[in-house]
Amino acid sequence: MAKSKFEYVRLFEADDRCLPNTWIVVRVDGKGFHKFSTEHEYEKPNDIKALSLMNRAAMSVMEEFKDVCLAYGQSDEYSFVFRKETQAYSRRSAKLSTNVCSLFTSAFVYYWNEYFPTSKPRYPPVFDGRTVLYPSNQNIRDYLSWRQADCHINNLYNTTFWTLILKGGLTPAEAESKLKGTLSGDKNEILFSQFGINYNTEPEMLRKGTVLVRRKIPVALPNGGTREKSQIVQEHVDIIGDEFWNTNSHLLTVT
Amino acid sequence: MAKSKFEYVRLFEADDRCLPNTWIVVRVDGKGFHKFSTEHEYEKPNDIKALSLMNRAAMSVMEEFKDVCLAYGQSDEYSFVFRKETQAYSRRSAKLSTNVCSLFTSAFVYYWNEYFPTSKPRYPPVFDGRTVLYPSNQNIRDYLSWRQADCHINNLYNTTFWTLILKGGLTPAEAESKLKGTLSGDKNEILFSQFGINYNTEPEMLRKGTVLVRRKIPVALPNGGTREKSQIVQEHVDIIGDEFWNTNSHLLTVT
Amino acid sequence: MAKSKFEYVRLFEADDRCLPNTWIVVRVDGKGFHKFSTEHEYEKPNDIKALSLMNRAAMSVMEEFKDVCLAYGQSDEYSFVFRKETQAYSRRSAKLSTNVCSLFTSAFVYYWNEYFPTSKPRYPPVFDGRTVLYPSNQNIRDYLSWRQADCHINNLYNTTFWTLILKGGLTPAEAESKLKGTLSGDKNEILFSQFGINYNTEPEMLRKGTVLVRRKIPVALPNGGTREKSQIVQEHVDIIGDEFWNTNSHLLTVT
Amino acid sequence: MAKSKFEYVRLFEADDRCLPNTWIVVRVDGKGFHKFSTEHEYEKPNDIKALSLMNRAAMSVMEEFKDVCLAYGQSDEYSFVFRKETQAYSRRSAKLSTNVCSLFTSAFVYYWNEYFPTSKPRYPPVFDGRTVLYPSNQNIRDYLSWRQADCHINNLYNTTFWTLILKGGLTPAEAESKLKGTLSGDKNEILFSQFGINYNTEPEMLRKGTVLVRRKIPVALPNGGTREKSQIVQEHVDIIGDEFWNTNSHLLTVT
Repeated sequence: MAKSKFEYVRLFEADDRCLPNTWIVVRVDGKGFHKFSTEHEYEKPNDIKALSLMNRAAMSVMEEFKDVCLAYGQSDEYSFVFRKETQAYSRRSAKLSTNVCSLFTSAFVYYWNEYFPTSKPRYPPVFDGRTVLYPSNQNIRDYLSWRQADCHINNLYNTTFWTLILKGGLTPAEAESKLKGTLSGDKNEILFSQFGINYNTEPEMLRKGTVLVRRKIPVALPNGGTREKSQIVQEHVDIIGDEFWNTNSHLLTVT
Repeated sequence: MAKSKFEYVRLFEADDRCLPNTWIVVRVDGKGFHKFSTEHEYEKPNDIKALSLMNRAAMSVMEEFKDVCLAYGQSDEYSFVFRKETQAYSRRSAKLSTNVCSLFTSAFVYYWNEYFPTSKPRYPPVFDGRTVLYPSNQNIRDYLSWRQADCHINNLYNTTFWTLILKGGLTPAEAESKLKGTLSGDKNEILFSQFGINYNTEPEMLRKGTVLVRRKIPVALPNGGTREKSQIVQEHVDIIGDEFWNTNSHLLTVT
Repeated sequence: MAKSKFEYVRLFEADDRCLPNTWIVVRVDGKGFHKFSTEHEYEKPNDIKALSLMNRAAMSVMEEFKDVCLAYGQSDEYSFVFRKETQAYSRRSAKLSTNVCSLFTSAFVYYWNEYFPTSKPRYPPVFDGRTVLYPSNQNIRDYLSWRQADCHINNLYNTTFWTLILKGGLTPAEAESKLKGTLSGDKNEILFSQFGINYNTEPEMLRKGTVLVRRKIPVALPNGGTREKSQIVQEHVDIIGDEFWNTNSHLLTVT
Repeated sequence: MAKSKFEYVRLFEADDRCLPNTWIVVRVDGKGFHKFSTEHEYEKPNDIKALSLMNRAAMSVMEEFKDVCLAYGQSDEYSFVFRKETQAYSRRSAKLSTNVCSLFTSAFVYYWNEYFPTSKPRYPPVFDGRTVLYPSNQNIRDYLSWRQADCHINNLYNTTFWTLILKGGLTPAEAESKLKGTLSGDKNEILFSQFGINYNTEPEMLRKGTVLVRRKIPVALPNGGTREKSQIVQEHVDIIGDEFWNTNSHLLTVT
């Protein structure tokens, strides 16, 4: 079709291709989810249904983007790690962040009532997104460690805070005051000595967050026997130490 | 809370603030909507319900972002024009594009069954987003003219194409062949002489797309009388010529 | 010639084209010129030879880059304003800043001994460069006003400071102490009442800096008569107020 | 001093800091040096004086920028490799490229008559500059290999081309025609069989270009004995193969 005289405005679009040979992370973050979780009566300190819905939305992203080799989620955020050599959307930063963010949001609303069957969200939930580049394997590991350390710190705090309220009868202000200046050891001690809770036996999904990776899984064949099929699996494991990376060394290797 | 030794990875996030004193457009575009519209049995050549749902999603964006002074939508795309002087998200490009794109997507799924009450989408729909800067008033007008000219060209083509099929009994291949190389006048002639259709009397929403602007609307007060209230209204008008801009000169003025 | 297997590294070069339809300013700044001026015994508070050499170097830039419509210099810095619509180096930011900066530096060293005939610089002088975009005519005028206001503030200070030392017999520390917290009016008063100097009659090159523009100048023809020829001229005039811009309105008009 | 109302224009300067933990290369390239070398009667195919002046200018850059761990030059270009972890100029791209480019240019003019004592350049020579990022050690090695391969290809061509003219009596057009489509082996053969020249015994500076690195050199002490001192040395060695990198492994190691 004929081009209009207005076509020149396309030249104002900037080229935002990411530096080659770097890890590309797209992280989505819930917008105003403190308020959203309160208004939707998320259970405190953790709502398994809400976390599962986050994981479901992340699965949709990972099914769509074959070059995402690992995703990590906790609380109201999810990070998607694209292989260093990905050519998805020609590595254009905005294309990657908006497509991932839109699909994640879409799936979150779409699958909502599989996790909250008796209700509908009160309003459309929103996630923002960003693209960040990490040049080295150490950098991408440190990025993921940063998010998992954040998960640990926040979850220990929230678990103690809400236990003081729900089981200890404190007001939120009293609980906040009691926790002010405490270290990890102090919070573990409060949980154990006052409430008999061993934090280290709390569910791993809460303490570690969720890692999504692709694994070859044997699937049964109609005529008997099995064959290996790549599937996305959810794991709740430590990704700060070396063990995970030693046993999953393929993740950091250019294929 | 204590910062972890991994915090340094935050320094890898780039500063992507938009040049000050320029119009910021965020455009969202349906991803794979040719396929999506077929799989969801959108009426051809236009599905009023689907366009209305697009408009509904755009209303959500405009309600949230007070600095969007005008939005323009057609087909599976919507452009949101932020005031030149907006400081929303400190003018960070990715924040703007992902928030707008996520909210648009979320509202599209959220309000789906107000427009398609008997069904649910077969899978989560996705929109991508981009941020583009336009320095001058002429540039932003030309951008919007580009999109409306695109609407006109595509809608005239699609209307003729589908009329040849649905009323003329042609196959899609025959219709495509017949339209190859035709100009606007040729298509108008086919519609009129063969099918008695005057294209210029087709609904304006289809021919012009939809403009969203804020207008002061008188609202009734409980005790009688009225007061003016700002409301977002949908208009299906020409925005290529000068008339719209003369009567809405405030849109291009820094407030 | 055959391409080597290493050619792929070219893909790591980023596209840095400037937004269309914006004023492009390249500013060069002397690096460590406080030290440089001392080591080369620049006269205080102003060295006419040094400023003239700066102007000579700027002339070289403007002769080379036809799309520089105006340049403004003061102290150890020079700003080059490219027309909004320039396509020089495809508007690539680094190409513009490095070419301008290199030519300016080269000419500064090259013409040094036309201004300092008895000596050679003690070491190679360096200027850094940067590219900044300004969308509107008001923005580019404000940019130039900012530099000229800076010239005024610094020159009034330096003139008073050095007069107190050279004519008043103060030490630098005493002069600095005396000027601390003074306003413009105070400095004018010190110059006038203590030294009989009317600052407003100081040379305009010092108070206003130097503006380079192209003017049609009549040149004599061999056979008698004249014809107009475009030449770069140096002016020492106010560019903050409207007068300059009213009489040079072509500078801000797209050609 | 008081800030003027024009200060806001500073906000239009973009943040252009380079991604952390990546190699930063600043490459300077002669602008129009084909013409420049002809007008200054550079000897063909290579002018040792001109190459030595390039090396001298590069030495100035490396003396100033302690974080340049290696520089590589050939023909009218020089590449400066900043350590991955450099914080020079806060890694701001334009600051790095313009400072390096300006100093290189300045030194080139400044030291000109140490190499061309009987003349002065006919006009100020210009070099452009660019900043490119390379994430991995392999990438930076491939970048340097690319430049050295370029040196080899061009120098073999130029040597053969000029030998055909200067010793073989061909016109430039005849020489060009004769070399069209030839491979490296063909050119080696022409040189050897027609002119008795073994290309592999040509000076290494011409065949390999120049590598600048810092080496600990023993310097004599006044009272006898020696101590090690870091000095910049020029080497004309292969940097494509592994040997150089094995014996200089510290260059690629974060310190």
